[in-house]
Amino acid sequence: MPLVTVEISESVPVETRRRYADAIHEGLVEGLGMDAADRFQVIHPLPDGHIIADPSYLGGERRNVVYIRVQMVRMYDKAAKTQMFAAVAARLEAEGVRPDDVFIVITENTLEDWYPGARGAR
Amino acid sequence: MPLVTVEISESVPVETRRRYADAIHEGLVEGLGMDAADRFQVIHPLPDGHIIADPSYLGGERRNVVYIRVQMVRMYDKAAKTQMFAAVAARLEAEGVRPDDVFIVITENTLEDWYPGARGAR
Amino acid sequence: MPLVTVEISESVPVETRRRYADAIHEGLVEGLGMDAADRFQVIHPLPDGHIIADPSYLGGERRNVVYIRVQMVRMYDKAAKTQMFAAVAARLEAEGVRPDDVFIVITENTLEDWYPGARGAR
Repeated sequence: MPLVTVEISESVPVETRRRYADAIHEGLVEGLGMDAADRFQVIHPLPDGHIIADPSYLGGERRNVVYIRVQMVRMYDKAAKTQMFAAVAARLEAEGVRPDDVFIVITENTLEDWYPGARGAR
Repeated sequence: MPLVTVEISESVPVETRRRYADAIHEGLVEGLGMDAADRFQVIHPLPDGHIIADPSYLGGERRNVVYIRVQMVRMYDKAAKTQMFAAVAARLEAEGVRPDDVFIVITENTLEDWYPGARGAR
Repeated sequence: MPLVTVEISESVPVETRRRYADAIHEGLVEGLGMDAADRFQVIHPLPDGHIIADPSYLGGERRNVVYIRVQMVRMYDKAAKTQMFAAVAARLEAEGVRPDDVFIVITENTLEDWYPGARGAR
């Protein structure tokens, strides 16, 4: 049950945002070996100047960063995370997002921290 | 000092959002045995199509999901969390939210990770 | 690579929001001894009534709270965090934010949880 948050410029058209969300989901499914039905995402469109990213810190050349936050259960090792990062970046690149503009952060918790609706809860 | 984030469709009227926030707060107070004065919440209204949730993953039938994120200090056991989930869902149901549409995620940190204003800080 | 989220009233002018973001970044650099180029921030402007904070819980008098969330790698001790809180509050005060209205929350993860773009990633 990852919950994925996407923070993106509101100048990106609505249909494009959705295609990015699809690509991100496919990257998680591929990279983490996740069930394709396990899709929970929120897209936050933000005004000009509200998404701030140093253009070159650590390397690359950032221009229009898309922030992707993945909240998930602690159960994937470093290799799986690295694989997921690469899969998300590749899928987004196919949709026109430069790989330097993909910024992903993972936060982990445990299974008991999730309530996916009354009938989804164990 | 939980900080609670609510992500909800902007089609929900402003006064209704506030009633939902009240209900969520009451659910935390009841479920966690929390001080009623300990209220810190942010409501993010989002455009159509920006809140994505698989309609049936893990069970139930999701239609208009309300995402609720609870950032809190690691000090509650699984029973307290389960109790809180149920209390929030029950309070929201009384306001018209279907229990299948309540999605809650907890993230934990420690007491030293909070600065509740200059005079609130120890 | 902290990722800093700022949730602020949309009644605060756009240029002022940016000055607050600058002040917060300078507070992190000073308080954590962080590289000044390590800047990643998102500002979420929110409508009236969507930022809720108890006016006096734990002390002080809150009026127009600015929520600041710092997602960072687990590597700073309590003293560094306390120092960062004070530095951020001082810098914001210089921009006109009352210290009682500064609310900061830290969430920690590990280095392997970050993907700062294709060429920024190790």
